[in-house]
Amino acid sequence: MLANEEEHARLVETARGDRPADLFVRGGTIANVYSGELHKGNVAVTSGRIAFVGEGERTVGPDTEIIDAKGMIVSPGYMEAHFHPWVLYNPVSLVEGVLPLGTTTIVADNLFFFMQTGHEGFAKMAGDLRGLPLLYLWMARLTSQATFPGEKEMFGLDKIEPLLRRDDVLGTAEVTRWPALAAGDPALISGIRKAKSLGKVVDGHTGGASESRLQPVAAAGIDADHEAISKEEVLNRLRIGIWTMLRNSSLRPDLPELLRSVTENGVSTHRLIMTTDGPSPQFIAEHGLVDGVLRVAVDNGVSPMQALQMVTINPATLFRIDGDVGGIGIGRRADLLILPDLASFRPETVITQGRVVAERGELRVPLPDIEWDSYGSRPRFDPDLDLGDLALYQQELSEAEVPVIHLRSAVITERKDARVRSVNGLVVPDEGNLHAALIDREGAWISRALVSGLAPNLDGFASTYNTTTHLLVLGRRPQSMARAARRVRELDGGIVVVEGEKVTFELALPISGMMSGLPFADVVELNRRLARAVLRAGYEHHDIVYTLLFLTCDFLPALRLTPLGLLDVKSSETLAATERL
Amino acid sequence: MLANEEEHARLVETARGDRPADLFVRGGTIANVYSGELHKGNVAVTSGRIAFVGEGERTVGPDTEIIDAKGMIVSPGYMEAHFHPWVLYNPVSLVEGVLPLGTTTIVADNLFFFMQTGHEGFAKMAGDLRGLPLLYLWMARLTSQATFPGEKEMFGLDKIEPLLRRDDVLGTAEVTRWPALAAGDPALISGIRKAKSLGKVVDGHTGGASESRLQPVAAAGIDADHEAISKEEVLNRLRIGIWTMLRNSSLRPDLPELLRSVTENGVSTHRLIMTTDGPSPQFIAEHGLVDGVLRVAVDNGVSPMQALQMVTINPATLFRIDGDVGGIGIGRRADLLILPDLASFRPETVITQGRVVAERGELRVPLPDIEWDSYGSRPRFDPDLDLGDLALYQQELSEAEVPVIHLRSAVITERKDARVRSVNGLVVPDEGNLHAALIDREGAWISRALVSGLAPNLDGFASTYNTTTHLLVLGRRPQSMARAARRVRELDGGIVVVEGEKVTFELALPISGMMSGLPFADVVELNRRLARAVLRAGYEHHDIVYTLLFLTCDFLPALRLTPLGLLDVKSSETLAATERL
Repeated sequence: MLANEEEHARLVETARGDRPADLFVRGGTIANVYSGELHKGNVAVTSGRIAFVGEGERTVGPDTEIIDAKGMIVSPGYMEAHFHPWVLYNPVSLVEGVLPLGTTTIVADNLFFFMQTGHEGFAKMAGDLRGLPLLYLWMARLTSQATFPGEKEMFGLDKIEPLLRRDDVLGTAEVTRWPALAAGDPALISGIRKAKSLGKVVDGHTGGASESRLQPVAAAGIDADHEAISKEEVLNRLRIGIWTMLRNSSLRPDLPELLRSVTENGVSTHRLIMTTDGPSPQFIAEHGLVDGVLRVAVDNGVSPMQALQMVTINPATLFRIDGDVGGIGIGRRADLLILPDLASFRPETVITQGRVVAERGELRVPLPDIEWDSYGSRPRFDPDLDLGDLALYQQELSEAEVPVIHLRSAVITERKDARVRSVNGLVVPDEGNLHAALIDREGAWISRALVSGLAPNLDGFASTYNTTTHLLVLGRRPQSMARAARRVRELDGGIVVVEGEKVTFELALPISGMMSGLPFADVVELNRRLARAVLRAGYEHHDIVYTLLFLTCDFLPALRLTPLGLLDVKSSETLAATERL
Repeated sequence: MLANEEEHARLVETARGDRPADLFVRGGTIANVYSGELHKGNVAVTSGRIAFVGEGERTVGPDTEIIDAKGMIVSPGYMEAHFHPWVLYNPVSLVEGVLPLGTTTIVADNLFFFMQTGHEGFAKMAGDLRGLPLLYLWMARLTSQATFPGEKEMFGLDKIEPLLRRDDVLGTAEVTRWPALAAGDPALISGIRKAKSLGKVVDGHTGGASESRLQPVAAAGIDADHEAISKEEVLNRLRIGIWTMLRNSSLRPDLPELLRSVTENGVSTHRLIMTTDGPSPQFIAEHGLVDGVLRVAVDNGVSPMQALQMVTINPATLFRIDGDVGGIGIGRRADLLILPDLASFRPETVITQGRVVAERGELRVPLPDIEWDSYGSRPRFDPDLDLGDLALYQQELSEAEVPVIHLRSAVITERKDARVRSVNGLVVPDEGNLHAALIDREGAWISRALVSGLAPNLDGFASTYNTTTHLLVLGRRPQSMARAARRVRELDGGIVVVEGEKVTFELALPISGMMSGLPFADVVELNRRLARAVLRAGYEHHDIVYTLLFLTCDFLPALRLTPLGLLDVKSSETLAATERL
């Protein structure tokens, strides 16, 4: 992330007063996250970086662009420290949605890019994304979120190390399967040790870990965690040395509770970070991104400066990039916001690398055209896989009482054992139960189960948007399920709702089966339509996007439909194995 | 700095409750520098690292050593972030002096070790010092403190890079010659860029830099600086993104002034660090080391927790070693202090890597015997160099008015032009003026000048303790000077005072010409005797050790006696060139 030699030399020249600045932000009040002060000061920029901060105008030349910030706050751009840039939006469309809101750096999960396109595809994409006016940095996964045959090879250290050696890869991403860390899993520990030996950071995931389970996960080597859901869980993490991220996502908008650690216990905030953890498009449209968590923090009694530090210098320090981003300091990227106040946190002007990229909520620069297909990210389906075969969607009756995946909340399930009826040896789901099938896109295997508590009146539904990116099909009517599944294949991945025989909602997700190529505003609208479609089918939870994502994962309680079959996560027992197709 | 694989595995086992701890600190109040809280908690240690922090005793087994900390504070060991372990003491004797006071980690300057012994000698020494019960980490110099022919080759990037690749080298040490950074000196910038590309930290030195000169030095790439001497200078550094170290050294005990930035301006303290910057042995004996700056901070109104953070987690974060030291966190080295309170900061018990190493101010473990000579650190003198030749110590009269190095304070000089008398064509120093000669130990060259304001009644004095480690000889009587010089050679380096013909003080410094091999207590006593000896000769300043050190440097105003001759630092003009011998 160093400036190149020539830029570095120019920076020193401007700082010395021997070369006019490219850009000069005059007369603002600097929100200084280093000193915690608000103070008057000009900011001069050369070669996209900050060359001067302070009084005086000696860096202004005849060709220097001047921005008048009188009466305004000049803030460092916001940093999102734990993000999944594949929640229907893609890394480019996301920029349309969040850069005008002041988020200028995103530390992003590489999961589906890496799984779909491998190291080379990911490297090519990450390189192309450097052309964006928002800085993407990456965390490299050590495992998937739903184990499968071949996972160990895909995530072998030989595959991970080249990623970790990249400048724009800051460390290893959350290991959602954290009990493996507590157990000292050798492959994971090796990955963590490799990352640390390269000076990189290890992100954690300890959702649901009790205080006593947290300790071995910390001992395994995680530096940071974002899974606290109560004030006490914040303290448990912070106190044992974990950088603690306070989350406000569409799935878990817990920030008001978590901030009680600051407002009630008065903890030091230098190792606290606020994150949105990849919210749904609709949530971003309604609540903003990092700007939104800043508003929540201040509304809940945190000082504006401490709040700002929690999304700028604190994450930059955790990731060891505070020489490049996170504050208005000499040598840093000139990612600056001109803010009317420290209450709305909505920028009038967004500057990245010394260039005005958004004003009054509107993007002002074109985004590069990305050829997603060139990375090999379009999901492949076996042409011989007959998705019209209704047998795919029905379970044979093996016993009268079967375990059902019951959704207790948007993502937490419990096991319910139900007596089921059958017709011609095939299960007929009772009221509220849905058929569920996870079908390998390559046509090798299928996992089947019953699901309840999701959307009882769903006729047919299919989606590649899940932690496996295989084809998840749900519904009470096999014909409708088949229709939805076939349509998803026609779309090269996506989400389809069928009512009766009619497709009533569809969203193509041709980028890794997870992301739309449409503009951000369109994705928001489609997210809303999806929410309405499942609401009509009886969905009672608050985040359909995450319900879909995690139905197939292997780290949340209790039952999950995975590439290994119907899994009891806690016992690791497969209750119904995958069948060969 | 990672624990090895086996230790790492044991740590996870203990954290999980499956393996008893080696050591268990029970019932104390933890000074938690992560959360800023004081809270009850036990600490369990395995393989020298912290495996558990919290309530409960599940990690206690039958063979676990128990330390009762009831009613006591359990604090992380103190870290000295900017240190020169060669101020008469050596890195081992220093441990005797400061480990019982609670300093458990020292980030040390490699200057004289590297200059005297090269990369191999330094590497061997750094390896041997790992056997100490105090953790030494290193910063690698990019230049010397007094330029000389061959300096560029000695400090070439090919020599520095192998150092920077070492785990125990955290970055590049202060560049005292900071105007070269402001000028964009390519060799220095290359060294800094190499350090940054390896994820290392760049320490700075900006003594006397005005706000406007500070900016180009920052642009060159320094991450930290310790040279602020007023509250305003603290703010100037902190605000532009520099980690700012507040110094309290024997030479510059400025901490009370500097802390006004905290107590009056209320700045965030997360990027402030307190340092002692290598004080004299006597100062350490009288004021402590890091424990001493903690007392000063609290006496000046800083909260004990903020003060503690400034010498633990803050420096650990700057140096990117907060996963290893700087707090009582899982996985960190078990460097713990049992303190009666957070006022005296004097530990009852000092534990490093899980072992009790000092109690009630006394070291409790033997220190390794270090064969200093095996690194090639004994200074060499050319046997043919005739130090009895009185002509060495006298200047020929070239003009009636000559520039004199006049000491305005312990280390700051000014130019005074004096008319001088001569006898037989040789200068006779007037009242208060001394002859000064810097003689190449290899016998190739000599630099000469007159010095005033130092110690007018000094008959003869010689010392290798200076930034060049060559032989600095001072005095009003050439015969006494010759006696002192010859005695220093007999000692293989050191400091000698001669009154008339009699040696009235001597201190052998056979380690690089800078360090004694004697125990710390003896070095303190010798430091006191040296101070008395120069006081008798009329020394009026407060720190003879630093007066000697810096008389030959090339970065402090105004005139200096250097290997290039009598140097005007600001203009870089050589007022009287070195002569060949």
